[in-house]
Amino acid sequence: MSVGTSAMTDAGRFPFEHAAVIGLGLIGGSVARDLAARGVRVSAYDADRRQLDAALADGVIAESLDATLAGAQAAELVVVAVPVDRALGVLERVAPHALGASLITDVGSTKAAIVAGATALGLSDRFVGSHPMAGDHRSGWSASRLGLFEGARVYLCRGDETPASTLDRAASLWRGLGAVPASMRADEHDRHLAWTSHLPHIISTMLALTLADGRMRREDLGPGGRDMTRLAGSSAEMWTAIASENGAAIDAALAAAAGRLAEFRDLLQRSDAESLHRRFADARTWFDA
Amino acid sequence: MSVGTSAMTDAGRFPFEHAAVIGLGLIGGSVARDLAARGVRVSAYDADRRQLDAALADGVIAESLDATLAGAQAAELVVVAVPVDRALGVLERVAPHALGASLITDVGSTKAAIVAGATALGLSDRFVGSHPMAGDHRSGWSASRLGLFEGARVYLCRGDETPASTLDRAASLWRGLGAVPASMRADEHDRHLAWTSHLPHIISTMLALTLADGRMRREDLGPGGRDMTRLAGSSAEMWTAIASENGAAIDAALAAAAGRLAEFRDLLQRSDAESLHRRFADARTWFDA
Repeated sequence: MSVGTSAMTDAGRFPFEHAAVIGLGLIGGSVARDLAARGVRVSAYDADRRQLDAALADGVIAESLDATLAGAQAAELVVVAVPVDRALGVLERVAPHALGASLITDVGSTKAAIVAGATALGLSDRFVGSHPMAGDHRSGWSASRLGLFEGARVYLCRGDETPASTLDRAASLWRGLGAVPASMRADEHDRHLAWTSHLPHIISTMLALTLADGRMRREDLGPGGRDMTRLAGSSAEMWTAIASENGAAIDAALAAAAGRLAEFRDLLQRSDAESLHRRFADARTWFDA
Repeated sequence: MSVGTSAMTDAGRFPFEHAAVIGLGLIGGSVARDLAARGVRVSAYDADRRQLDAALADGVIAESLDATLAGAQAAELVVVAVPVDRALGVLERVAPHALGASLITDVGSTKAAIVAGATALGLSDRFVGSHPMAGDHRSGWSASRLGLFEGARVYLCRGDETPASTLDRAASLWRGLGAVPASMRADEHDRHLAWTSHLPHIISTMLALTLADGRMRREDLGPGGRDMTRLAGSSAEMWTAIASENGAAIDAALAAAAGRLAEFRDLLQRSDAESLHRRFADARTWFDA
């Protein structure tokens, strides 16, 4: 899954001087902070004026863009960092202005729709979808931070007609932010992430709702239980969009989880200690692998 | 749920000088380390000779006990720290020798059986069950550490005939180790913990097994997913015992979780974004409370 390293042979030089970041939440804000720290001039837009003002006040962004995104024309790099159900609309809005950009990318947790949309917009040459496996349950500019992508895996998904040089450029961007890029087909990415990201997230949400049903509070939990319910504190808007966009793949993973849960309950009801032990031991084997 | 503070009015003086700790795993080992650090002479036994030797080599325990536990006769405090399905057997074994102990306690995650067992053994006057909400997925002496109980809630469960002075003594012990004691009836504890501890643990295990079914590895997960599967690395032996002993209460919690999961899948299949959003938002409301 790794991509070529050719684009980084000119070690040290960051490949962009002026970037436009659309959306200053946890991920977009952290991208803006990392870029600014590397001397990149960052223009930015956020539909929430308060996020934009906070980023200006913090000295991270050089100028704010207005809602037309017309000011993105000077940027060599455009990063769309909004919930996945809005990313395509933002891409449509910025595309006519982003004529100077050699790389346009996003940061969403689903990739098939945005890569297909970029192709339909005629952006194949310059668009590569990105999905950094970083962040936590918090959201907004106040949750963003320098170095968020250090050591994180970033999936890169290109269209069938996107040249390797554009993929390399995206890999350079993320390596420059300390991340580890891995290329994957967009449809494969969405099926894979339904298991590795969306499933754990929704299970955490279901656990929180179950505990609420049982009238238990988060402060009643031990350290393990608190870890298990941390993702339930994430943005409802962002996750509704992900669940809606990748519903079929997520449901397949949830069906497997429901099967495991039903099996465990059956063993519990039959007091089958030997089989229960095997389940715990199998889980530990997977954990230790 | 809080207990009286009278036992700690003589602030500073630790209420025991000689303790016997049976079982030197994560919890028992950490109790031994904390006691030794407070100047308590600790005698200990572990069925695994290597754990015992490691604790001796680390200078934490002053002497090892043999399997008869006869050497516990000098201890003012006896702590039984073995998996819950073995705790009663150990209690039976140590009781005839623990004649000098003013407090006998355990550290298991279920309490009804051990409190009833202690009563049956005639230990009502001196036994209080303890359940510290501390630790992680690791096990054995090598996982034990100083200060593990700092700030942790510890449930204390006494029998109907156990005097308040014994409960106070147990509260003093745990406060002396930095923990926050809370008294609860044993049967109520077991029902409560089925939700706040056993449910998250088993959900983590189910998630790990589901990911294994989908041929996903733990290294494919982001930071949130790794947190969600950490508890799956726990001791299979310990958790089989807990699941077996508290099966009915755990199954009630798992039934609620299965209901939430089925409901979510239904909404996903019907692409009901509004209801999905409400579920994510409700979970976040619970998280933020």
